[in-house]
Amino acid sequence: MDVDGLCVNTLRFLSVDMIEQARSGHPGLPLGAAPMAYVLWDRLLRFDPRDPAWPDRDRFVLSAGHGSALLYSLLHLYGYDLPMEELRRFRQWGSRTPGHPERGLSPGVEATTGPLGQGLGMAVGMAIAGRFLEDTFNLPDVRVFGHRVYALVSDGDLMEGVSYEAASLAGLLRLDNLVCLYDDNGVSLEGPTAKAFTEDLRGRFEAAGWNVLRVEDGNDLDGIEGAVRSALAAKGRPSLVAIRTHIGYGSPKQDSHSAHGEPLGKEAARATRRSLGWKVEEPFHVPAEALAHCRKAVERGAALSAGWRDGVARMRKRAPELAGRLEQFLDGKLPDGWKAALPSFSAADPPLATREASSKVMNALNKALHEMGPYHILVGGSADLNPSVKTFLSGFGEFGFTKEYPHNIHFGVREHAMGAIANGLALHSRFRPYAATFLVFSDYMRAPIRLAALMRAPVIFIFTHDSVFVGEDGPTHEPVEQVMSLRLVPGLTVLRPADASETVEAWRTAIDRKGPVAIILTRQAVPTLDPARYRIPAGFGRGAYVLSEGKGAGPDLVLVGTGSEVHVVLAAAEELEKKGVSARAVSMPSWELFEEQGEQYRRAVLPAGVPVLAVEAGVTTGWHRYVGERGAVIGLDRFGVSAPGKTAYEKLGFSVEAVVSRAMGLLGR
Amino acid sequence: MDVDGLCVNTLRFLSVDMIEQARSGHPGLPLGAAPMAYVLWDRLLRFDPRDPAWPDRDRFVLSAGHGSALLYSLLHLYGYDLPMEELRRFRQWGSRTPGHPERGLSPGVEATTGPLGQGLGMAVGMAIAGRFLEDTFNLPDVRVFGHRVYALVSDGDLMEGVSYEAASLAGLLRLDNLVCLYDDNGVSLEGPTAKAFTEDLRGRFEAAGWNVLRVEDGNDLDGIEGAVRSALAAKGRPSLVAIRTHIGYGSPKQDSHSAHGEPLGKEAARATRRSLGWKVEEPFHVPAEALAHCRKAVERGAALSAGWRDGVARMRKRAPELAGRLEQFLDGKLPDGWKAALPSFSAADPPLATREASSKVMNALNKALHEMGPYHILVGGSADLNPSVKTFLSGFGEFGFTKEYPHNIHFGVREHAMGAIANGLALHSRFRPYAATFLVFSDYMRAPIRLAALMRAPVIFIFTHDSVFVGEDGPTHEPVEQVMSLRLVPGLTVLRPADASETVEAWRTAIDRKGPVAIILTRQAVPTLDPARYRIPAGFGRGAYVLSEGKGAGPDLVLVGTGSEVHVVLAAAEELEKKGVSARAVSMPSWELFEEQGEQYRRAVLPAGVPVLAVEAGVTTGWHRYVGERGAVIGLDRFGVSAPGKTAYEKLGFSVEAVVSRAMGLLGR
Repeated sequence: MDVDGLCVNTLRFLSVDMIEQARSGHPGLPLGAAPMAYVLWDRLLRFDPRDPAWPDRDRFVLSAGHGSALLYSLLHLYGYDLPMEELRRFRQWGSRTPGHPERGLSPGVEATTGPLGQGLGMAVGMAIAGRFLEDTFNLPDVRVFGHRVYALVSDGDLMEGVSYEAASLAGLLRLDNLVCLYDDNGVSLEGPTAKAFTEDLRGRFEAAGWNVLRVEDGNDLDGIEGAVRSALAAKGRPSLVAIRTHIGYGSPKQDSHSAHGEPLGKEAARATRRSLGWKVEEPFHVPAEALAHCRKAVERGAALSAGWRDGVARMRKRAPELAGRLEQFLDGKLPDGWKAALPSFSAADPPLATREASSKVMNALNKALHEMGPYHILVGGSADLNPSVKTFLSGFGEFGFTKEYPHNIHFGVREHAMGAIANGLALHSRFRPYAATFLVFSDYMRAPIRLAALMRAPVIFIFTHDSVFVGEDGPTHEPVEQVMSLRLVPGLTVLRPADASETVEAWRTAIDRKGPVAIILTRQAVPTLDPARYRIPAGFGRGAYVLSEGKGAGPDLVLVGTGSEVHVVLAAAEELEKKGVSARAVSMPSWELFEEQGEQYRRAVLPAGVPVLAVEAGVTTGWHRYVGERGAVIGLDRFGVSAPGKTAYEKLGFSVEAVVSRAMGLLGR
Repeated sequence: MDVDGLCVNTLRFLSVDMIEQARSGHPGLPLGAAPMAYVLWDRLLRFDPRDPAWPDRDRFVLSAGHGSALLYSLLHLYGYDLPMEELRRFRQWGSRTPGHPERGLSPGVEATTGPLGQGLGMAVGMAIAGRFLEDTFNLPDVRVFGHRVYALVSDGDLMEGVSYEAASLAGLLRLDNLVCLYDDNGVSLEGPTAKAFTEDLRGRFEAAGWNVLRVEDGNDLDGIEGAVRSALAAKGRPSLVAIRTHIGYGSPKQDSHSAHGEPLGKEAARATRRSLGWKVEEPFHVPAEALAHCRKAVERGAALSAGWRDGVARMRKRAPELAGRLEQFLDGKLPDGWKAALPSFSAADPPLATREASSKVMNALNKALHEMGPYHILVGGSADLNPSVKTFLSGFGEFGFTKEYPHNIHFGVREHAMGAIANGLALHSRFRPYAATFLVFSDYMRAPIRLAALMRAPVIFIFTHDSVFVGEDGPTHEPVEQVMSLRLVPGLTVLRPADASETVEAWRTAIDRKGPVAIILTRQAVPTLDPARYRIPAGFGRGAYVLSEGKGAGPDLVLVGTGSEVHVVLAAAEELEKKGVSARAVSMPSWELFEEQGEQYRRAVLPAGVPVLAVEAGVTTGWHRYVGERGAVIGLDRFGVSAPGKTAYEKLGFSVEAVVSRAMGLLGR
């Protein structure tokens, strides 16, 4: 067996042995796809295993995350800091080799994958990110960015809607820095793909503007290499290289769906060793020759990243200002002045929808970052809703259509891919991508939102049209359960500002925050709170704060509102005062920020023993945490209705009178 | 102007006037697509406006639901019970003409649409339903079913991932009873589609096995008719008829995205009247000639449905048993004996995953319904996970591959389309479709789940692998927030059975229930509760019930569990007894059922003043409703982890010891 064959088999049997040891895992993909992975990693992929964060590295995304054992085998063999002990602890508590690859846990894992289709979407985001950097930082004679993005995808990835959406956009944007290797094994979990997946793949991808290549023998290393090199040479089109493989190659379960998701078993593993000429029965065996061959990547990688640093040094001489920007970008620190550049609002301003306020904030912020700091921090767009969600960064270009500072991405009506692409942008480098749509359509992108939270990717999700007060468009367009549902996602920070000033704070928080943030905004105009009267900046950052106090020693009742309902709560508190009730009004823009405060602060806002009446135009489930047994929630445990927003306000129980009456009832008056 | 032109303009200006009157709505589509809608409704669509539920009617789905004004205009003109007063009350509180079409509110509206892509997915489900009925009930010489499904789709629909997924499956299944009219107007909300949607539509749909036709002039009535007739003649392939139109046709905003989503305004509306030769300034004008022409549909429809009833009468003579089945199916009543046909389990049974128990129940149920009742009630499948979710109905065929009783549908890895298709099946007639995947991937199908709830479509969603105890696959495959998140959807009933016997009850409930149900099942084996000891059938139906009581006059503490955590709760109650604590153990499989009980029952299960400790392997938010201020929740407010399920149990705080210790802490002992 030549060294190539030895390396491929090493990858295969490391994977098989990991899965046998764990008694859990997916051997089908590693056995079939090891050759393409080997060709890619050994002959094409540019990376530095000792500097996994090298900015100009090629990105490799295992979209078919169930093949994780193969990825860990690659990382180990190619010199990343993933020692053999970790491979032996595959899928165990506390290991760096979890069941599906997790970004941040194992060096060299670019994205958390497993939910099918997401990896392809994130790869498109990374390819967009790469293109941004090329267009921004490359000089005619110093090319500091030129990396590629590779994704390994399975049938399952390509059946998911998100993969079509992402592919459609990648074709439109002519992302020729993206190459997908398709592990075409003709088998999915329920059996042969003839049962569920019979598309003409070439036709499909060509229709989306892709270059399609095919390799008929998944073990033909040179054939695979040639196809990928040809893909890299194709200009103006992303490429799909479909490689015909055999799931569970060499095993008794070859070509059967039973090879997909469970260990081969002792006997079958032995038979596989025999059929593939792997003579060592001892598990986790790595032939010295194979190791030596693969580990050459360490030296190769060091030279690559050193060459890149030389390029940056040359850039520093030729174009010092640009080089400074680059360093600033790579460093990820924002210029000191950015917070001061945000607009401020006054109570004298006319009522303003928070989506409009957000637009002003975003634009001011982007302008400031552009002038003072690295060019591209804020990049993003909406799912074909710019005129409604107001997220266009005016004065800046459109990605794919203008070369200079094209901060604006037209995602099209593709919420799901938008989320995945935003994740890819955030993972790639120091972008702070934003992705906007109507709140109700966050349902279309739950999967990437969850992944962002799991990866702590700093994506800013902007969700407007945030309640039944959308009005005439009716229940299909009126979120009811969405705000609470987003609060359930661990690690996602949900911000629902009450007015323009709170919207400024929402953006400040979003930019400062480590993980993903969802900013929830109104369609309808709301009054601007008086910044002189309310301590908005200090209060917002703590998640909830007292806006107004009733007269008397302590409150009889605390009224809590979020977003547009804060104004109802404020008015109701005033009305209650007239009735001799001392009511405190609290704005609670963020549960997550509030929960991070100490018990003392939380008790200061919501004193023990004082009944709480919460008002939010969404489901009531969840609020009992704050209102307790003596309090109540005014919410909406039903779908919305098509009617003018003001009518909905009245009829659905969100008028000031309704709140006052409920409050009096609570107090037994 | 000939009568055709008069009718088309009537549709246009009724729509424009509705939108002007409401000061809200989407005139762009009605102005451009009125001709295709008119051709379809006037020359092709088979319906009986006085019997909107006629079983063999063609289905028309306005996937581009924002064009609702056009649909209401059609319904009114063609004689459905939608009087002019309703058109005048477009988008107002309590009207039958809401902002987007709502099934159940206006006669003749087949599906609630608006969230883009859903209508196309539901249309595919309806086409599958039609094929089921043809294959089951048509005799060689009596063809009782032969209807078509038409969908009107927009750019936005075709950009959504769900449309690709649904189209891919429709092509594979050779659904030649499906025709999509594509309103190809070259404009979406952010501007020309060149910015976001440049696919080769023909290539895309042909790659998915569709027949594609093109009409270059959207005002060419005969051209449109010819293309649709040619589509109907194509065998073995669904058809897309792409019709080039102009958004906002005839208005000053024609071909601009500003025509899409807001009223034209008084001046522009007047200019549009002038440019299209509409002389009457009076709004809501219907020329007598146009009305007379369209209303011929009433007579035509009566003849069509009468002819169908004759066919059924002939069938009754030729094949009385089959005719009986058909009546049973159309009637929607299940045979009396179905509940008795469900299996029962005993405590002597070995531990069994509830997904396995569910498989036994489904299979028994399906067999019984098949023997005793109409053939097709349960139809469905999984998103390529049958071997894991265990939803295959064995002994029955596979839809698209076998003609006889093909209850099993291979949806492929297409959760989103699966949900939409299941909705379409449920809307079409009396099917009880089921759709299965891992619980964590319910995130991919939030939009159709919500729509099912909004439409009260009786879909049974089956979600297995229901917690962090999935184990090795890790956080991407471990639901944490999903159970609670589903509970937030108004009108969705969530059932999380604790064992095999509760799983039987879950199915009984699901079949009896009017709206959609989600059954949440374990991957791991759980003990079987002793049916002799626990009053499971009576208790389950009430959503929560007492499994065991401690000794003493009343409980010191109530332990509440759901699903697999019920067993932990039971064991903890026993341990607490040994420590002198009287602990009640409660199983709470369904919040929705529990909330439907009277206060008295709820208080009997969860007595006022007794602390409650809830245990559920998911987020704690929401549980405070039941545990109150003195109680606590043992849950998981973080993502899961890749490790063997048992390790996860221990390490994440779900051991019996952890529950006991928390309980003692709560009681201050």
